[in-house]
Amino acid sequence: MEEMPLGRAFTLLEPGPVIWVVTDDGTRANVMTISWTMVLDFDARFAICTGPWNSSYAALEEQRDCVIAIPPAEMIDTVLGVGTCSGKVVDKIARFGLRTQPARHVRPPLLADCIAAVECRVVDIVEAHSIVVLQGVAAWTNPALSGARMLHAVGDGTFIADGERFDRRAQMASKLPPGI
Amino acid sequence: MEEMPLGRAFTLLEPGPVIWVVTDDGTRANVMTISWTMVLDFDARFAICTGPWNSSYAALEEQRDCVIAIPPAEMIDTVLGVGTCSGKVVDKIARFGLRTQPARHVRPPLLADCIAAVECRVVDIVEAHSIVVLQGVAAWTNPALSGARMLHAVGDGTFIADGERFDRRAQMASKLPPGI
Repeated sequence: MEEMPLGRAFTLLEPGPVIWVVTDDGTRANVMTISWTMVLDFDARFAICTGPWNSSYAALEEQRDCVIAIPPAEMIDTVLGVGTCSGKVVDKIARFGLRTQPARHVRPPLLADCIAAVECRVVDIVEAHSIVVLQGVAAWTNPALSGARMLHAVGDGTFIADGERFDRRAQMASKLPPGI
Repeated sequence: MEEMPLGRAFTLLEPGPVIWVVTDDGTRANVMTISWTMVLDFDARFAICTGPWNSSYAALEEQRDCVIAIPPAEMIDTVLGVGTCSGKVVDKIARFGLRTQPARHVRPPLLADCIAAVECRVVDIVEAHSIVVLQGVAAWTNPALSGARMLHAVGDGTFIADGERFDRRAQMASKLPPGI
């Protein structure tokens, strides 16, 4: 993975892809598939919606860090496999053959076959709404997957890959943060 | 627009599309384009990230309702137009020729040329993170735009339309709420 400017990390989540959240509870790494996520600020601040019903939640609450990884659309069946079994009973990293590499600032690893990854610290948990607030501290892209399609969950068991792209940089210039 | 079951409304936001938020401050309707949104629950509960820097925020805070509308990818240039001018100085509904029709439960109107719309009440504002929590109270789809592509913002001035679709309902059955 190659480092990318942290100030561009919001562009990984803004399109609304299915993501993997990689945690480590101190004994082993675990992964969950979620798509209830939101950008909170251009400065790599994100919200995810999760709670005690996900076994990864305890690791987020106690270890206060995670890696957000963006799987390419071609990994859809791995995405589904990861999303439909529990880290309480399965070592998902091993079962699904996910290749890892060390992160720089946090204990959970990067996933080497993903489009991109963001190392994050948990900075707040809004329990009333099951919102975990994350601050990105480093971001990485996979040059081998440049231009790969992200995957979007509809929520009814169907999924959609990225399609046609439109360049509207000129029209949007007034709304973009510096350097984007 | 045709009414759709409220229990399916989360499937409109889960894919992460660019949305319009329609408000009414008591004098006239206004629209903003945003893509920092998240599903919070299957029961039509959503979060959007906005604050006083958007002129629609005052209407959300004071009137406590809005309509979330999903524009089709073909409206990209209207989406950009709406997103790059201010309702403080422009009547956006008039300028962009947005056709409206009355909502059932809230004052802001539905937008008749959108893929779908959700009437929402503001149920909480988490000021520390600029998160507005919405509860859907009615949902509508546009039969004329059945199957239309949604639009996703990357955040750097480029946009992506929905592409290839994958049916994984069988594999996801254990994770879906009843009736979905």
